[in-house]
Parts: sequence; structure tokens; C-alpha cells
Amino acid sequence: MAGNNRIRHNREIERKFLVDKEWLPDILKQFRSFVIDQGYLATESAGRQVRLRKAGSTRSLTFKVGRSSHREEREIKLSPKQFAALWPGTAGRRLRKERYEIPWEGLLIEVDIYRGRHAGLIVAEVEFPDTASCRRFIAPGWFGDEVTGKKDYSNVRLALQ
Amino acid sequence: MAGNNRIRHNREIERKFLVDKEWLPDILKQFRSFVIDQGYLATESAGRQVRLRKAGSTRSLTFKVGRSSHREEREIKLSPKQFAALWPGTAGRRLRKERYEIPWEGLLIEVDIYRGRHAGLIVAEVEFPDTASCRRFIAPGWFGDEVTGKKDYSNVRLALQ
Repeated sequence: MAGNNRIRHNREIERKFLVDKEWLPDILKQFRSFVIDQGYLATESAGRQVRLRKAGSTRSLTFKVGRSSHREEREIKLSPKQFAALWPGTAGRRLRKERYEIPWEGLLIEVDIYRGRHAGLIVAEVEFPDTASCRRFIAPGWFGDEVTGKKDYSNVRLALQ
Repeated sequence: MAGNNRIRHNREIERKFLVDKEWLPDILKQFRSFVIDQGYLATESAGRQVRLRKAGSTRSLTFKVGRSSHREEREIKLSPKQFAALWPGTAGRRLRKERYEIPWEGLLIEVDIYRGRHAGLIVAEVEFPDTASCRRFIAPGWFGDEVTGKKDYSNVRLALQ
């Protein structure tokens, strides 16, 4: 159960874009999707946070600290019982979204369609293996405004709103 | 492994006192003791915190929120692997203490002898089943100044210092 712990010490190179519902490609439904429920037990400035997440049937606790160049992420899988014991602690600090994973030109586009009080918000995120591929990236036509690094669209901000 | 999860929604009725090393009773060594290592992944005001603790061979993650009358505490046991994955996230926010548990007049006195940079600090804490027994309590002669509710002696404050 505790076998899939994950530790990352790196700068995530990613870009984030808004997507208008009207522009979502029809083919979206072909791809794998799952519901993500996440909530925050505690958050500090400097990006320090403890997040609980249920993605499909996978439950996890993730610790993050730092931003951009100094970013550290530690994640453990939780059993259903462990998750159930902690989850109520995130009341009022949660969000729900449906995630589609779309392979695209050797990359992966994650499209998050928010539910609940943020319904209407759709965000596409792309992670890059290096800065060169990040620079070369030409956004598909259905991507809207870029919001990379904008705090208003961080999940923790959305959850606490 | 996840069988011992613990959830408390209550007001903890407890009192906390300083103890001078010279006044520690000789009989202390008769009682059970263990080393506690604890660190904080994240803390917010209003007492919201996520704490990791290793007490003897028991590893746990505890979420706390609120103070006094509105206090909520959720604790899960962690496997050694889960604990090891998260523990580095508490760097610079840790403390170590040796705890003695002393039965005393139907109550339990917990004596914490701090190690490391807080060496020299000794605190005795007593938890009461109700306010009446709390009021009736007469501190043993070896107790020093009462510091109940003083933030300077909260573990989270000591760990962050």
C-alpha cells in the first residue's frame, strides 16, 4: 500500500491555459477521464501545503513546498481508511474537477473541467520535459488565454475561495 | 495498519507546568519513557497544523485545527515507508523530547524533557476528564510555574523557533 510513494525535487516546467467550453474539441470524450476531489489540510505562504486527493480510486496525501526553481513535492498513497479519517479536515477547502488526459504531439494535455462553485472554469495544463520544448510549444487552436503562474488559477486559491 | 485512526472533537482540559531539572523526582526513572520526534509539515494560525510524530516505534500523522472550545484532532498511523517519504518535509521545524508517563492520583502526568536546541526545558502536562477535576487539582511540589495556554511553550512554536 505504501509502495508508490513519490518524491520530486524539481522545477516543474508547465504552462496553463484557460479553455472556453464552446471550444472544447469533440474528441475529448474519447480520452481517459476521472473525477478528482481534492482538499487542503493546511496551507502556508511560499507554497507550503498539505493536500488530500482522491483521483478515481487512488487516494493520496501530498506535501508541497516552494515555488518554481525551489520546489519539493512528497506524496504518499493512503488507504481508504486513512483517507476517510483525514478528509473531513478539508471541509470548506475543497474542489472537484473532471480530468481528461489527452496525448498531444508527444506531450500530455491535462484538461480540468471544474465542478461545483467553480463550474464553468476549464483549464488545460501541459508539462514539458525541458525548457526548449516549453519554448517551442505552439498551443492548439482551442486553447484560450494563457494563465501560467497566475495565482487566481492555482488550485489552492480556488479551493480556499 | 490503518486500524488505529483516532478522531477527537473536544475541548482538551489540560494544564501545563514548567519543571526545574533539580526538582525532578528520583522516582521518574521507574516509569515508562520513550523518545518523541515530531515535526510540522504545515501550520496556520487558528491552530491548524499537520504534524508528523514518531513516538517510540509508532509513527503517525496528526491534523489539528482550532483552539480550546472548538478543537478537532484527526490522527492516522503511518507505515515506516509512508513516514520516511514525508519526514524530510519537516526539516527545520522539528523537536525531540523524552517523555515519561507518571500515574498520579488517578491522573497521568506527562513529563517532556526536551533535547537539542531546547535542552534544559522540561514541561509537565496533566489532562483532566472534566473541569471539576481540573479545578480540584493540586500540583505536586516539584511542579514549577504554570504555563497553561502560553504560546511560547506550544510545541509548534518551539519547533518553528
